Amino acid sequence: MIKTGVIGYGYWGPNVVRNFNSSSDIKVLKICDKNKDRREIAGQDFPNIKIVGEADDIIRDKDISAAAIVTPVFTHYDLAKKLLLNGKHIFIEKPFTSNTKQADELIEIAERKNLTIMVDHTFLFTGAVKKIKQIIEEGILGNLYYYDSVRVNLGLFQHDINVIWDLIPHDISILNYVLGDLKPVSVNVAGCGHFKRGIEDVAYLNIKFENDFNAHFHANWLSPVKVRKTLIAGDKNMLVWNDLETDEKIKIYDRGVDIETQEGIYSSLAQYRLGGMISPKVETMEALKVETKYFADCLKNGRKPFNDGIAGRKVVRILEASDISLKNDGNAVKL
Amino acid sequence: MIKTGVIGYGYWGPNVVRNFNSSSDIKVLKICDKNKDRREIAGQDFPNIKIVGEADDIIRDKDISAAAIVTPVFTHYDLAKKLLLNGKHIFIEKPFTSNTKQADELIEIAERKNLTIMVDHTFLFTGAVKKIKQIIEEGILGNLYYYDSVRVNLGLFQHDINVIWDLIPHDISILNYVLGDLKPVSVNVAGCGHFKRGIEDVAYLNIKFENDFNAHFHANWLSPVKVRKTLIAGDKNMLVWNDLETDEKIKIYDRGVDIETQEGIYSSLAQYRLGGMISPKVETMEALKVETKYFADCLKNGRKPFNDGIAGRKVVRILEASDISLKNDGNAVKL
Amino acid sequence: MIKTGVIGYGYWGPNVVRNFNSSSDIKVLKICDKNKDRREIAGQDFPNIKIVGEADDIIRDKDISAAAIVTPVFTHYDLAKKLLLNGKHIFIEKPFTSNTKQADELIEIAERKNLTIMVDHTFLFTGAVKKIKQIIEEGILGNLYYYDSVRVNLGLFQHDINVIWDLIPHDISILNYVLGDLKPVSVNVAGCGHFKRGIEDVAYLNIKFENDFNAHFHANWLSPVKVRKTLIAGDKNMLVWNDLETDEKIKIYDRGVDIETQEGIYSSLAQYRLGGMISPKVETMEALKVETKYFADCLKNGRKPFNDGIAGRKVVRILEASDISLKNDGNAVKL
Amino acid sequence: MIKTGVIGYGYWGPNVVRNFNSSSDIKVLKICDKNKDRREIAGQDFPNIKIVGEADDIIRDKDISAAAIVTPVFTHYDLAKKLLLNGKHIFIEKPFTSNTKQADELIEIAERKNLTIMVDHTFLFTGAVKKIKQIIEEGILGNLYYYDSVRVNLGLFQHDINVIWDLIPHDISILNYVLGDLKPVSVNVAGCGHFKRGIEDVAYLNIKFENDFNAHFHANWLSPVKVRKTLIAGDKNMLVWNDLETDEKIKIYDRGVDIETQEGIYSSLAQYRLGGMISPKVETMEALKVETKYFADCLKNGRKPFNDGIAGRKVVRILEASDISLKNDGNAVKL
Repeated sequence: MIKTGVIGYGYWGPNVVRNFNSSSDIKVLKICDKNKDRREIAGQDFPNIKIVGEADDIIRDKDISAAAIVTPVFTHYDLAKKLLLNGKHIFIEKPFTSNTKQADELIEIAERKNLTIMVDHTFLFTGAVKKIKQIIEEGILGNLYYYDSVRVNLGLFQHDINVIWDLIPHDISILNYVLGDLKPVSVNVAGCGHFKRGIEDVAYLNIKFENDFNAHFHANWLSPVKVRKTLIAGDKNMLVWNDLETDEKIKIYDRGVDIETQEGIYSSLAQYRLGGMISPKVETMEALKVETKYFADCLKNGRKPFNDGIAGRKVVRILEASDISLKNDGNAVKL
Repeated sequence: MIKTGVIGYGYWGPNVVRNFNSSSDIKVLKICDKNKDRREIAGQDFPNIKIVGEADDIIRDKDISAAAIVTPVFTHYDLAKKLLLNGKHIFIEKPFTSNTKQADELIEIAERKNLTIMVDHTFLFTGAVKKIKQIIEEGILGNLYYYDSVRVNLGLFQHDINVIWDLIPHDISILNYVLGDLKPVSVNVAGCGHFKRGIEDVAYLNIKFENDFNAHFHANWLSPVKVRKTLIAGDKNMLVWNDLETDEKIKIYDRGVDIETQEGIYSSLAQYRLGGMISPKVETMEALKVETKYFADCLKNGRKPFNDGIAGRKVVRILEASDISLKNDGNAVKL
Repeated sequence: MIKTGVIGYGYWGPNVVRNFNSSSDIKVLKICDKNKDRREIAGQDFPNIKIVGEADDIIRDKDISAAAIVTPVFTHYDLAKKLLLNGKHIFIEKPFTSNTKQADELIEIAERKNLTIMVDHTFLFTGAVKKIKQIIEEGILGNLYYYDSVRVNLGLFQHDINVIWDLIPHDISILNYVLGDLKPVSVNVAGCGHFKRGIEDVAYLNIKFENDFNAHFHANWLSPVKVRKTLIAGDKNMLVWNDLETDEKIKIYDRGVDIETQEGIYSSLAQYRLGGMISPKVETMEALKVETKYFADCLKNGRKPFNDGIAGRKVVRILEASDISLKNDGNAVKL
Repeated sequence: MIKTGVIGYGYWGPNVVRNFNSSSDIKVLKICDKNKDRREIAGQDFPNIKIVGEADDIIRDKDISAAAIVTPVFTHYDLAKKLLLNGKHIFIEKPFTSNTKQADELIEIAERKNLTIMVDHTFLFTGAVKKIKQIIEEGILGNLYYYDSVRVNLGLFQHDINVIWDLIPHDISILNYVLGDLKPVSVNVAGCGHFKRGIEDVAYLNIKFENDFNAHFHANWLSPVKVRKTLIAGDKNMLVWNDLETDEKIKIYDRGVDIETQEGIYSSLAQYRLGGMISPKVETMEALKVETKYFADCLKNGRKPFNDGIAGRKVVRILEASDISLKNDGNAVKL
């Protein structure tokens, strides 16, 4: 049985506690939140778990071998470092850290002390993302052209981070996971904020990759309608993932274009392929439950998770570059 | 009766001839196309109109007082200049010219010779765009936050221009029309091409305006699904225009966010407004028919059209800047 | 504090217990289920509530003043009668009883002993249905033409009742609630069953009302797609209620037809009105929570609920007639 | 070259003339309409075709070997009989005739004089219906459970026939075509009219078939939204045809239910199959063009069309029964 503490009982913390607690491999000994009201709610939700106000109560608890950090990103580095130095494995919210320097240090400590860092990129454990990864790995899309994601809605405004740091970690972690090894080359960002200086509420992030592959992300807290839609196009087939659909989340279109190179004034001739569409079955298990089981398995078997510190650092690297691009008129930042 | 010639009988030319011809104020005397097959089709479609192979046949025709140029953009400047110098009014396809220098010269000639240039930004004559302009002018959206347009589908590939020059003129002309005086500050573009060097097939164009207003355009020839969707958000209401809907093309959402500034750790508190939605009735007349009537009215009354050479030049200015940004890693080009 | 017992802990029972238990006016003393597995789950879900296997344990409990009956319909009459005779108020699942004779007897007992019967027509407490009732009462739709409901999906198959008894009580209770006094005249039913004799899995029920108003219901356990859509048309406006939409559940269309009577071969001339559409804001509170509060209020204040035994009986009357029509080739059954 | 006349130049007539005229096998010599305005329009549309006001001008024309009847249904029998007696093949609008007696007589005459009757059930020549027929014939749906069609919109009101005679012939012809031999047993109809006595504007028609197969049709001139949706469910797969979709008109769902019969209180246990979905490519040729070619082929090769008088009579038989059911409280009419 893995004995754990959970630090942070805000929006996402209750889900972590509930899933940890209902796992047969994990027991939550303590929940920590600085806010009195949140502690009261935690006490009502989980009468059998000890509720504390100071993270140190978990950091220094000898019975606890792993802790979840479910707090704002600016607190991640400090909490994670202390936990690792006290010999705890960590399960940490995305984005991993505020910059790559912090990430590097945490990765190094964990490595040295043989501890596990799992970054909670929950989406990687959804049926949809697993299916997309499988589709791409089986070559069904062929050579990839581009990745285009729209993640927009009204709210939730964060006070310490902009809409890129809030929403885009989901998409970059998914992109990295489903694409595998593709190397990013540069980042451009456009964004604007309407309420607080330095907090963009609408933003567009573009990543150039090797081989003319391009990824683009629209993140927006000011959209009247909620959209969660991703296009992934390849030369064999093209995929649309609409995460708001109950059924038919993923559609694979037998569509594309075949170019015949010809002589003469028109140097090429495009033939459009307009075939049918397939919507594969997608599993509907709660992602955090699957991830919790995976976390326990990794700890029990000493296996390194794929969503480890290095995966988390890759996401932070893009976010870090996005800040620089934003301050420089959206100009390209080489990676 | 305005006697006209139409140069170019490819994809769009037949629509121009049909609308000109069914107008009670306009008579089409000649249709010109360099391509023999197209001339044959023109002859079958309009047995009573003279079909010619050389533009000069129209340029030098003393009976003709106005001509439509419905040819690829690289031919616009040359044809337009000759027509104007021969005293003809012109109705010219978008984009107006290949660069602003050409546009300036044509505008100057028309001015000097008291001739009319109308750039065929057909969308400005749709019921939807007219309704959107009215909504914005009546202040229903309030102060504007952003404009976001997605115009994607599979094909049509052009051989001489990229997807920006092909699709985005629609959106920039609409943006300029509905926003009125707002001044663009800079342009960033990201794009990639998969078939022919220098011909981007997927592109994202971002325009920064004064006062934190931002406009973003996604243009794409490689999308498995067709999308024509524009968001325009303001502090009072937000609008979604889905041009593929038969009914309910425009939806106005009573949604927004009210920020209360407060002291303390959270410096602001967002209150979301989630009210109802209204979809106003939109007129369904064929846009080119309305525009044709307007063209005839402008010529008859010596009135300057709002979609004149200067309006066309504004669009070309953005496209010109987009080329520079594309060649410079998507970096900002000041306007 | 109203002390209650809940009989039945299957699909819906847990929701009743959760809502009763979180009400400040109600306390659940006992949960009863005949099934051992369900009792175990109830015990885990609510460690502080006593779990029993015999309904008598609740029926004869002097501390309990009200009970919820959340069991299959064939058990309703027996349980309800015993509870009423033992002086308990009842909150009972839809459909109220298996026939009107049972309903009449229960209503009579409750009346005599001054007890409350509330039939759990949960939908009447949704924001959508309340909004529709308001729209109709304000005359926004004008004189009503028809009501058309489609409630189809794959499963859930019941073993003791057909798809009409399973799904259509929702719609009839809604119809009665939003229409008020309109009197049904006759019922026709078409249906077919593919798995078990006498258990229709696809059915169409039509109710004729006075004044050419007609109501039609499609209920289906064998549809590949889930649909929850109701049209209500009047001479002023027409309404579409799509309960599967997150936003925009209700749309009111300014559409209709104006008939001009004329002389001559065409005795009338139809003018179609094709105006805009409005989607009003709909409240999103959990319906059963609102209903629970209403139940408590009725008991505290001795107020008769609008969803009382008489309302429940009206629904049963239609279901009863539907059985007769089904056995008679779908022929009309007068009400 | 088949020389033809077209009688009736109202809503559909122009399409028939255009398609006949552009066929390489057919020449339209005369168009007839009783209405002067329609004749004028016909003259403008087709300056090379003779326009006449009396059907006799076509009926007695020795050069004409086939005629299209595109007039209201109450005129069909009289025109068709005269044409057949004068040795002309006929292409006749749906519904074929006003009753089966008329249909029988016309079929008998055509048989005797070796002439072709083709009833214009245009939908049978769409890519969607051909694909559905193929899917069913290949056994992809398995044994069929039911057919459910919704065909509703605002208008077009007819003056001489109700909404059943106007809209449902489409669906019955499709049903007969895709199902093949299945035998109808009885018909029930519910309907109501709000503007003119005897002209129902909202109607529901149900057909019972052998073997528990059921077909149901909702036809409606008073719906604020346009719907063209058909469900066809079988034990292997289920199909949804949404004719208003541009792409993805047909979706085949790998969904169903497997019943295990068991002993005990629950006599059966349903297992739901919730697999993926496939949307096959559907051809997009204009149906009337395909049908025109088929008409010419049948005449040239002396082949009997599948949409002949007998097929047309089957549709009329259902419509005739629907009138009787409507007058008898929706009671079943045996076929």
